Amino acid sequence: MRYGIIGVGAIGGFYGSKLAYSGQEVHFLSHSDYQFVKEQGMQVDSCDGSFHLDHINVYQYSQDMPKCDVVIVGLKTTNNHLLKDLLPPLLHEHTVVVLIQNGIGVEADVQQTFPELQLIAGLAFICSAKTKPGHVNHQCYGSINFGNYSCKDEAIFQNIINDFTKAGIKAASVPYEEARWKKAVWNMPFNGMTVALETRTDLLLKNPATRQLIREQMMEVIGAANHLGVTGLDSSFAEKMIETTDAMTPYSPSMKLDYDFHRPMEIHYLYTRPIEIARAAGFRMPKLEMLEAELRFKSGL
Amino acid sequence: MRYGIIGVGAIGGFYGSKLAYSGQEVHFLSHSDYQFVKEQGMQVDSCDGSFHLDHINVYQYSQDMPKCDVVIVGLKTTNNHLLKDLLPPLLHEHTVVVLIQNGIGVEADVQQTFPELQLIAGLAFICSAKTKPGHVNHQCYGSINFGNYSCKDEAIFQNIINDFTKAGIKAASVPYEEARWKKAVWNMPFNGMTVALETRTDLLLKNPATRQLIREQMMEVIGAANHLGVTGLDSSFAEKMIETTDAMTPYSPSMKLDYDFHRPMEIHYLYTRPIEIARAAGFRMPKLEMLEAELRFKSGL
Repeated sequence: MRYGIIGVGAIGGFYGSKLAYSGQEVHFLSHSDYQFVKEQGMQVDSCDGSFHLDHINVYQYSQDMPKCDVVIVGLKTTNNHLLKDLLPPLLHEHTVVVLIQNGIGVEADVQQTFPELQLIAGLAFICSAKTKPGHVNHQCYGSINFGNYSCKDEAIFQNIINDFTKAGIKAASVPYEEARWKKAVWNMPFNGMTVALETRTDLLLKNPATRQLIREQMMEVIGAANHLGVTGLDSSFAEKMIETTDAMTPYSPSMKLDYDFHRPMEIHYLYTRPIEIARAAGFRMPKLEMLEAELRFKSGL
Repeated sequence: MRYGIIGVGAIGGFYGSKLAYSGQEVHFLSHSDYQFVKEQGMQVDSCDGSFHLDHINVYQYSQDMPKCDVVIVGLKTTNNHLLKDLLPPLLHEHTVVVLIQNGIGVEADVQQTFPELQLIAGLAFICSAKTKPGHVNHQCYGSINFGNYSCKDEAIFQNIINDFTKAGIKAASVPYEEARWKKAVWNMPFNGMTVALETRTDLLLKNPATRQLIREQMMEVIGAANHLGVTGLDSSFAEKMIETTDAMTPYSPSMKLDYDFHRPMEIHYLYTRPIEIARAAGFRMPKLEMLEAELRFKSGL
């Protein structure tokens, strides 16, 4: 299968390079780092073993790229308005697009723009960062869950999982809604709260008041998911997420990095959309509504 | 009537000096500023006309003070644990104590320590600050509402209002519960949010997301008050508070000043107690619960 990667950052840069290093045919679209990657290749510094790729199929414009069987989108959702122009040159009749992105409602919106497109959600559990052009630093974890949103071709869905597994990445299939909402249980409290209080995950959990607040925010996400008919989430999942985070090294989630580096924050898909979806179904998430307002205040500074 | 003033800060220093300047007999208890005030007197810089008092009846220890007919407490509630020692030397059988303090549940707690004491709540609408020892800067407003908590002597209650009025202060009698909860409608959103987001009242109202959040937090206070049987508060009161604040000059509430100057914040009576009282009666204030947790986090830094 031929892979196309849109966005050569912490996500696209890591997973795309791993696939290329394992022998897959991979084509990268990179706007800002095109020249560097074309000349110098990609460097992945990883806890699982570092490696360098000398020659990268890299393009500055998607019009120059070949049609791909699988397109992996590693953009921040704040750039999803670009997809209507970036995607079409890469698509043939059976192309599957994997959105490795945060939030709720991402696939629904892309599907509205491309009604016939086969979409898969990719939920990455990874600590990685682009440290400079062509350089990805992979600190820990790295597993990925795929949730089938609208891919009718079960064989290609399975092939993607197999290719990731061959590339040394722990990959699994999970029910779509459950996967997205499970990730939101961690994302919604920790991404926003580290920005709102300008702190780190470990300090939020060390203070008894914010530890309890994080738990209550997680229960709002779980309550919304259950209300929407998503199964597999209950209070024990919240406790598991808190324990997992206790065991992590002090960590700045992606939204905190975006805030620190004055990049747009993914408020829309991480907060606005899930809050709207739950509210439309009659379920309120008051503490996460407040967090959304605090984030909008901070993003306006 | 003989007045005793506990705490010569923005509140006690202002109202006590105004009463003394109008000719009342006033005795001040000042721990930290005793020496300065004894030697230099009190200076009040006020939008209503500045004045200086050369000779002040000031004491370092309440044991040295005479018994008073009215004791005005201008301490922060974070110091209320001191009252069990400070008050007794000033009390005779009919002494009335006026607590000019923020929050909900203050009188109930003082009453537990002094079951027979006659208590009045003082709700000050004032922008003032102690700028240095013996100096109060009164920027604007200054009216005070008195709510009768447990004063059986209607004559003395009316005398207090008359004495304040003669001192040039707009003073009125209001139902106790309504007065405390009405003040909380402003206090709970603005005091905490200016600390949580390290900002000012005007900037909170300028951003549409936090403007709406402030409104929702006000409606939580109003909802709690109504649930507890307190009348006279509805959504139009919240709108009025927002419009009043729009018209104010950019302002740092007392809790923001406490935070900025690394003094203890009045989290207990401004948040914990009203949240507990409402919850015990079956009413939740989720956004103010979250704000309380954020304040506890920030006070622990």
